[in-house]
Parts: sequence; C-alpha cells; structure tokens
Amino acid sequence: MHPLTLDEAHTLALNVLSRHGFSQEQSQALARAVVAGERDECRSHGLYRLLNCIKTLAAGKVNAEAAPIIDDIAPGIVRVDAQGGFSQLAFESGLPLLASKARTQGIAAMAINHCVHFSALWIEIEAITGHGLVGLACNPSHAWVAPAGGILPVLGTNPLAFGWPRAASPPYLFDFATSAIARGDIELHRRENKALPEGWGIDRCGHPSRDPEAVLEGAMLTFGGHKGSALSTMIELIAGPLIGDLTSAQSLKHDAGAGGSPYHGELLIAMDPKRFLGERTEHFLQQAEEVFTSITSQGARLPSQRRYEARERSQREGVWLPDHLYQELSSLL
Amino acid sequence: MHPLTLDEAHTLALNVLSRHGFSQEQSQALARAVVAGERDECRSHGLYRLLNCIKTLAAGKVNAEAAPIIDDIAPGIVRVDAQGGFSQLAFESGLPLLASKARTQGIAAMAINHCVHFSALWIEIEAITGHGLVGLACNPSHAWVAPAGGILPVLGTNPLAFGWPRAASPPYLFDFATSAIARGDIELHRRENKALPEGWGIDRCGHPSRDPEAVLEGAMLTFGGHKGSALSTMIELIAGPLIGDLTSAQSLKHDAGAGGSPYHGELLIAMDPKRFLGERTEHFLQQAEEVFTSITSQGARLPSQRRYEARERSQREGVWLPDHLYQELSSLL
Repeated sequence: MHPLTLDEAHTLALNVLSRHGFSQEQSQALARAVVAGERDECRSHGLYRLLNCIKTLAAGKVNAEAAPIIDDIAPGIVRVDAQGGFSQLAFESGLPLLASKARTQGIAAMAINHCVHFSALWIEIEAITGHGLVGLACNPSHAWVAPAGGILPVLGTNPLAFGWPRAASPPYLFDFATSAIARGDIELHRRENKALPEGWGIDRCGHPSRDPEAVLEGAMLTFGGHKGSALSTMIELIAGPLIGDLTSAQSLKHDAGAGGSPYHGELLIAMDPKRFLGERTEHFLQQAEEVFTSITSQGARLPSQRRYEARERSQREGVWLPDHLYQELSSLL
Repeated sequence: MHPLTLDEAHTLALNVLSRHGFSQEQSQALARAVVAGERDECRSHGLYRLLNCIKTLAAGKVNAEAAPIIDDIAPGIVRVDAQGGFSQLAFESGLPLLASKARTQGIAAMAINHCVHFSALWIEIEAITGHGLVGLACNPSHAWVAPAGGILPVLGTNPLAFGWPRAASPPYLFDFATSAIARGDIELHRRENKALPEGWGIDRCGHPSRDPEAVLEGAMLTFGGHKGSALSTMIELIAGPLIGDLTSAQSLKHDAGAGGSPYHGELLIAMDPKRFLGERTEHFLQQAEEVFTSITSQGARLPSQRRYEARERSQREGVWLPDHLYQELSSLL
C-alpha cells in the first residue's frame, strides 16, 4: 500500500486529470470529489475513479474543458448546463445561486443538465448542509432495474440523498441507490464467482436468480419491493423529464454500449430552516437533535457514521492506495 | 350492504359531522375526504372514519370549529395553522396560495401546523396535480416504529406521497407508509388471532416477532431495512422540526394514551413543470408518458391503479356500506 496525505492525493488527482486534457476548473472539481471519496473510504468513488474519467474522455464521451452555464430561470430554480462535462464543476458553479435562492425563497431547486455523472451525491449534500440548508438530491442512471411486477430493466439505480445540517456534528446524511444493491456489487460477485443474496435480481425470464451473470443479463430489482420501485420511478420523473433531461433508458441508449458513465441530469432541492422557523430556528434544530439522540442512545447508528469515522482517520493519517493503483495513476502522469 | 350514491354518501357524512358540532367548513372538507376514500375503496379512510372524528371530538382532542390561518411567510413558503382542527380544511385553505407560489417561483412548500391528522395523502396530492403541478407530501405520526439497528419505537409510520400530473389519465401517484405495514394491519391480525408475516416487527427485547401482541408492545419496523429507516427519519425532520411542529415521539406523548388521531404537522412541496421547462413542457411531459408505458407495457402496474378502477366503479354504481356501519352512522344523525 502506498501512503499519501490528503494534499498529496489531491495533487496526484489534479495532475493526472490536467495531463489528459481536463481544464484547470474541471480538474480541481474532479480532484476534490475523488479525494473526498478516498478520504471517507468510499473507494468506488475514490482515486480509482480517475481511471474511469480518463477512459470516458478517451471514448469521446465527456467534454474535458466544459465551462458550465448558469441560468437563473425562475425565482426558485437555477439551471446549470454542464455542457457535456462531468457533474462536479456544474454543481459547484451553481451552488452559490442555489443557496442564495433557498435563503430568500425558503425553498429552491437546482437542475443540472447534460452532465456525465459518477458523483456520490453525499458530497453535494454536504456542500448544501455546509450553508446551513436542508438538501435533497437524486438522479437517474442507466436502465438496469425492473419495476415491481415487471421483468424488463427500465429504471436506473437512481440514488436518493438527503442531508440535515447539525451545528456540533457532521450532517445527518443518507445517500442510497433505490436498487437493492449497486451494479458494481453484482459485477464483483460475478468476478469472484459468488452467488448473489436473494432479492437482488431476476433473470431474463423474470425469475428470481442468484446467478450474477443471469441478473446482469436480466434485471436488477429495487430495494423495498413496490415502495422502492415507486420511489425509483419518482426519481426518473423529477430528475429526468421535469428538468428537461434524459431518463435512465435514454441515457443507456445514448451510451450505445460504450460502458461509459451515465449522461443525464440531476435535481437538487435546498430548504432554509431559518425561513421556515424564523426566531424559533434554534429551538427546533434542538428538537431535531433529540430525534438523533433517540436513535443513537439505543445503539442504532445514523447513516454516514462509518464514513465520518473514516474521514477523521484519513485527516489524521492520510490515505493508503493499493500499490497497483498508485503505479497505474503515476504512469498516467 | 346499504347502497348510496356518492352525493348521498356526502350528505350523510356532512350531516353526521354538523350534527356533532363541526363547523360547516370543517364538515364539508372532512366529508369530501371520507367520501373520496370510500369511493376509491380505501375503506380505512372512508365513511368508517367518521366514527373516529366523533370520538376524537368527544375526547376533546380536536377543534371542531377551527378556522385555519394562512401565513405567507416567504416567497416560497405558505404556512397554514390548522388551529387544532383536522388537516383537511387547512390543506384546502392553503392550496390556492401554494399553487400560485409554485407557478411563480417554480417550487414552493406548504407547512401545515397544529392539525389533527388522519388524511390519506393521495387526496391532497391529487389536488396538487389537479393544478398541473408535481406534488410531494409527508408527515410524522405516532412513534411506533424502531429505526434500523434499534429496538425502541421512536419513528412514526411516516407516509410519503408523490404525484405527477398526466393530461389524459389520472396522475402517477404513490402514497405509502415508510413502516413495513400500517398499524391497523397489525391490529387486524391481533383481532383475528393470526401470525404476522416476517419483517413487520420486533418484540420488547428487539427480537423479530410474528406475534401481533408482542409487536404492538415492542416496535414495528420500516420497509426496506436501513434505507426505509433513513427515509422515515428524513420525514420526522422535514415534517417535524423544519416546519416547527411535533415529531412522532412528541405527538404520541401529546396523545397521552387517549388513542386519538395523531396531532402534528405536514409538509407539502409543489413544483411547476412549466417553470422548469418553458416551451419544452409538452415534449418532456410526453417523455414522462414513455416512462409509464415502459412500465405498463411489460404488464407491471402503476401505483394507485386499483384505486382509479374502484373510483370508476363507484362513480357509475355508487358505494355500498356494511349495514352495521350505515346503521351506526344513521344513529348519529
């Protein structure tokens, strides 16, 4: 394993990206995102993703110099056209206007359009809660998931993330796929020749299957049966047609077998507790703390807790990259 | 069974409520809601609920003459103080301002406070989609549900509802409890002395249990494991402290064993596709229709489909009340 401080990891990511033609702004935003993933031990969103970024660029599927265009389309809506670049810079570019709209309107939405997407939504939710705002985010992906009662994959793995700002702790934050499991976990089982747990997927005939190969050819299932399926459909709608962008089925079609990151939009909603509560804000934020205490005091964990613990470790000790990954990244410099 | 036209059902409900002291406005709003439930064959939200309304009033737990107060607290937020009345009139009173805000801002929220709550959220979501808007609604309830990894009930059954307007059909609409099942279903199993399916609840020691009695004394579980639990916690936060109202734990405490309807708030969000899409609205609403077709053409059902079918039947043939219910309601006139 190769040790890196967080600053060294950032510099490595930045240099790899710049070297391959990403603009300075794109490289900075991407480097921040993958270092945050590595730091929080979300390795699938860590420095490893740089390989995908380069691959996606080599396949001509991303605009490495995209300069996002911000459009103030309504008092409560900011639209950011990512111009075919990765979503991270588009998000960062639109965030100040989203936050300012949430503060004046009470609630505001940000539609990110035409972005290539591999971002973990928790990074963006943390940026929103960093402004003292409540945040919600979701996006379609690729159509790999069958609706409840169906057999054909027409929904994406469609993640949903939510965050609540806390004064003395990192935010209450969840970020989960509405599919039973991430696509990558099924691919991991295939590579390791392991049977899937029940409930992850069905084969091409619609029969429940524990064979990773059969599920990859058939369809994944949502979490939570018909309720999870309904939620996933909601995300298709509000982060697809509502914001004038592609559905998961359209994104998969657009990929045309290239195996790149999905290309679509993303919807974010921010709400300002101060506009809802005025002088009562402190009191009711304290009530929220009691909700958290009622959960943790009985030994249950809040979502993201493991991630925050990993972060503290990484900030103290830096991160360790597998040697082969460190060598592969260094060879890209 | 006693047959009633929908008009007769409305008049019956109206007269029962007025006779017991509900104001004309409160009675009209409540009658519309319970007749809609009966019409759609959601019997637990049908005319049967009138008995609860009367019982809650007799217990001094609802204000029968409450006149909701509408407060325009921010460009994107309308607050409605239900003044201790049932939620229905508060919702109906605030809806015009919510819709108008969504149309000008693009996105708007409505916080209903201090209401006694038994409403099915789909009724309200249909009213929002009736304005051509996308709607989302949620509320806490009573703390009967344990968080994932915990054993003590601190969350409510916390329903979440969403609707998408469709030009040629009733809206795409779901409305589900984030608990694995409704509280009433567990009580039904107890009365019929039937074992529960797995996954509905745990006993007081936190062990999975299929004994309805043990689960009612222990805790219900959420749907979808830790993801459902995270969603339920989100609802506690955004429909509790964010809007300056009670959590499920506080609502249960406020009830103090009376067994009345929960007393708390409700959060609704409305978004206007026209403000997001402008001239592209028609095109992208058509894209949404393709999402629905991709689901139904493979034989899967959209949520609410059974309800819409029941509605057509009821509009043609009226509704049938069990004799004992009809007699009980008539005796209340």
